[in-house]
This record gives sequence, C-alpha cells and structure tokens, in this order.
Amino acid sequence: EPKGDRGENGEETNLSDFKPTSVLRDSARDKTIFVHGELKEQPAVVILEKTPFGEDTLTEMFKGAKTNLEVKNDIYSTYVFQPPAHLNEIKATVVCPATEAHVQKYQRKEIIMVEETEDDYKNITLPYITSKGLSVTWVYNILEKKAEKERIIFEDSDKELGFVLLPDFKWDQKQVDDLYLIAIVHKRDIKSLRDLTPDHLQLLQNIYQKGTDAIVQRYGLPTNKLRVYVHYQPSYYHFHVHFNSLSYEVPGSRVERAHLLQDIIQNLKSDPQYYKTRTLLFPMRTDDELISMYKAAGRL
Amino acid sequence: EPKGDRGENGEETNLSDFKPTSVLRDSARDKTIFVHGELKEQPAVVILEKTPFGEDTLTEMFKGAKTNLEVKNDIYSTYVFQPPAHLNEIKATVVCPATEAHVQKYQRKEIIMVEETEDDYKNITLPYITSKGLSVTWVYNILEKKAEKERIIFEDSDKELGFVLLPDFKWDQKQVDDLYLIAIVHKRDIKSLRDLTPDHLQLLQNIYQKGTDAIVQRYGLPTNKLRVYVHYQPSYYHFHVHFNSLSYEVPGSRVERAHLLQDIIQNLKSDPQYYKTRTLLFPMRTDDELISMYKAAGRL
Repeated sequence: EPKGDRGENGEETNLSDFKPTSVLRDSARDKTIFVHGELKEQPAVVILEKTPFGEDTLTEMFKGAKTNLEVKNDIYSTYVFQPPAHLNEIKATVVCPATEAHVQKYQRKEIIMVEETEDDYKNITLPYITSKGLSVTWVYNILEKKAEKERIIFEDSDKELGFVLLPDFKWDQKQVDDLYLIAIVHKRDIKSLRDLTPDHLQLLQNIYQKGTDAIVQRYGLPTNKLRVYVHYQPSYYHFHVHFNSLSYEVPGSRVERAHLLQDIIQNLKSDPQYYKTRTLLFPMRTDDELISMYKAAGRL
Repeated sequence: EPKGDRGENGEETNLSDFKPTSVLRDSARDKTIFVHGELKEQPAVVILEKTPFGEDTLTEMFKGAKTNLEVKNDIYSTYVFQPPAHLNEIKATVVCPATEAHVQKYQRKEIIMVEETEDDYKNITLPYITSKGLSVTWVYNILEKKAEKERIIFEDSDKELGFVLLPDFKWDQKQVDDLYLIAIVHKRDIKSLRDLTPDHLQLLQNIYQKGTDAIVQRYGLPTNKLRVYVHYQPSYYHFHVHFNSLSYEVPGSRVERAHLLQDIIQNLKSDPQYYKTRTLLFPMRTDDELISMYKAAGRL
C-alpha cells in the first residue's frame, strides 16, 4: 500500500506543499472547493470535498466533541463543534501537472442547452471528437490492469460483452447512500450513445444484469435502489455506464445529460436508428471548444 | 455571549452528552445527517452539517494538513487529509425535547424505482388514479381565475391549445438563477405523459414555443438556458409542464422522474404509441399508497 506519492525524482509529494493561488469553483451546498495553485513548482488543481458523516462513528464523534453554543430559541439551539480530527477528514483529488484545459474544466462556467441533430453530429460533433484525438490512456490503463487494479470490484473479461466495474472517484466507499460505480466496456469502438445500435443490445443487457448483480452482492443495495445511466455528451469518448444509489443527488443525473440504460435498451429495440437519427439535447459550457465549432457552423 | 446552554435547572448542556440511537436521514451530497437520540434523558434530534470551505483559510488549511495518499493514476491522485480541527468545524442544530412529529419530519423516506409496463399502468396505476379521485380543485381555481390570478405571467386562452404560465411556489422571483415556472393546460382530460398521443403535438409545441417566448420577454432568459420537462409520475394528474433555469439544480429534474418536452415531441412523432406502450421507470416513496397497490399485485 502506497504511503506517499513519489514523483519522478523519487521525492515524496505532500499536500502541505500545495500553494493555492485562486479558487476556481466553490459549492456551499456540496462542501466542495476547486483550487488552482502550485505543487512543487508544477501547476496543479486540488479538489477538496468534505466527507459524508460515518454513521458508525457518531457516538465517538459526539463524545470527543468540543462544542460552542451559538443560538438558543425555545426548543431549538445551534452549536458549532470540532470533532476529533480523525473523524472529520477531507478528501482531496489532485491533478498535477494540470494543463490550462484542466483549469478551464473545473472553473465554474455558463451552461447552455445544445440541440444536436443527426447532421450536427456528423458535421460538427464527430469531426471534433475525431480531430481532437482525446486521450483515454487512463481508461486503457484500467482495462489492461496497469492502474487501479485493486479497485476493480467486478469484471466480465469477454472482449465483446465484457466490462470492468469500479468505484467512481467521487465515492469514498464508506456508505451506500452515495454509492457511485462506473462500468467501462472492454470494446474500444463505441464512442458514445450516438454509436449504439441493436448490435449492442446484448452488451447493454449484460452490463445492466451483471453490474446490478455485483452491486447487490458486494454492497447489499438492491437493483430498485439504483439509477443506471449514460451521459451525453460523455466526459470521455469510451463507452461507460454510471451506477448510482437512487438517493444520491449527483449533478450528472439530471434529465438534460443522463439517459437511463433501460430506456436506451427499449429505444434501440423499437427503433434501430434511434440514437443515429434523433436530435439529442445536451448541456454544455459556453467556453467548451465544441461550442465554438457550433458557433462557427452557424448553429448557435 | 452565551458560553453554554443552561437548561431549566441551570445545568449546562453540552453536545458531548448526546447519546445517538438512530439515524433519521443522511445526505452524502450535502454532508448532513439527522440523528435521533437522548440529551440529558430527553428525546432529541441533532442535525449535523459540515461547514463549507472558507476561502480565506485555505493556505492555513493546507499548511497544517496531515495527508495520506490513497490512489495514483497518471496525473491524478487522491488523498485523505486531516486539517487542523478549528478550520474544519461542524454546525449542529438541536431540537430538544423533540416530539414524535419532529422525528417523522426529519426521517428520510425510502425511495425505490418502479418499472411500470403498459399492463401495470392499465391494471394498477390507472385504477388507482381513478379510484382516488384526487382533487385538482386548486388547479381549476387557477384556470378559472378564482385564485392566484395576479401571479399569472402569460396565458393562451384557447380551449384546446391554451395554458397559463405562472411561477412555481419554490421560486421567490428575485433572481433568474433559480427561475421555475409551471405551464398548466386548459384541457382537462390529460392526466399525465401516459395519455399523450400525436393528437397533442400541436398543444405541446404551443406550450414550448409560447412558454419560452414569454420567459425571454419577461425575464430575459434565453430558451437555451431553460430545462423544459414533464414529471412522471406527476404530483397531480392534470397535465402541466415545468420550466427551470438550466443552472438550477432542482431535485425533480433528475433522469428518473423528468422527461424533456422536446424528447416527448420527437418520440410521439416517430411512434404514436410511445407513451402508451413503453415501460416507464419512476421513483416513488415506499410509503406511497401506489406502492402498496404494486405490492398487492405482486409486482414489487
């Protein structure tokens, strides 16, 4: 088990070396902050998120708490308290070295809805995806067991129908309330929802069946407490499926971006061309390069 | 400034005296937990919420952090870290003594996903809706100008294609960031999405066109910054359409409950029977009466 993050020069990197320069985004509701700065003289983005409460540590947390009364009114009172530090951790995700693209990605930005017709996909979106040659090295690392091997909780190794299932980084795996796993397919030629045809029905049904089975077995969460869906646009163009606890209000699960796997299966069964021909709506940040392509084409 | 919470007997109450017995609700996204228990032998509910990050204490937070590397993959790594306790406080709200009504109020109701086939709708849902004779008097009051007349911001009074548009009660109308309006149709025979056929295409297109136009004119919010959708199941069985600011993360806009109006229009154009024959998924509280009907029918 790794004890520290050793860089190319073998030196240990510690978060206390991070020098914040600006806040990219700050969500008071989610208790999350995206910070731009420097780590060992390299540009870095650090995402901090307070951890959910651990139900099994509540008793200990209250016992060790240092409390201050703030307001009292009738039967209601409010306090501020400092629990023991080890029961109140923060999760940090570090991107280092971070490029300008990473900084852009995490900065809070204006979002608009795009209506992508069949022709828009062929003439604007597809050429953009192809020309960018966006790297999915980290996905291949997972599929080839070069990284995150110990995080995989289920695998079907079939080349055509198989996938790996592993926790999303957003999930700390401490409670099923915010369960979040990703199924990544072994097939490398499905970029997104747009590429799906009835040829993929068996793959999709396999992911749904074996993915939900693995989650019941491992975490005890039944299938009717899951939200199983695909993003369009996805954040990377290698086909993957999101599995969330239904109770988890994750931003990417809203109707303008998420497509339920079971709806996709039904749509492909009744219309083989559904995802090829349909006008698909999706939300996109106005500073995304794809938006400038839509503008250049006179479509926005 | 109060130093402690002195009870009737003058004794100081401290949160470390709280004995938790059960968790009423736990939100991993909001980092909030509702705990039932006892405080000095009285029933109490304690609501804990982690505090948002303080942008001005970030430098200090990183400096004093005790960090542990968890995962490293390419340029990404995740850590868990313990900041100095005084920079990572928790807000507590205490209700004491708490009644049974408080406990009920804070208790999370379990939600499950229901898969409603065409037959389930005919045999379970529709008879339930019909038998309940759920009152929509308040809707008719709006349509007949007996109530909320001054809140209407647009009306098309056509009996077949018309609707009224008014702010949802969730919206205080102070900023467009959380804009939320509802279009309620004049027609009284559309209970929900299930009743829609191509006969309603003109109505749906009229709502989309005139609703978005009215919002641009009145609030300056362009159509591509709107999320326009229908709920299934709806909270009342008289057809209505939701208009939100795309930036507003409203719970009812998640994929398991929301259906984009533009998707509905496309689906009805390509398959007249789409909403009659499709298996529709929807989330429902397990204490909802409809759930007991599904259970009685052996469908859950």
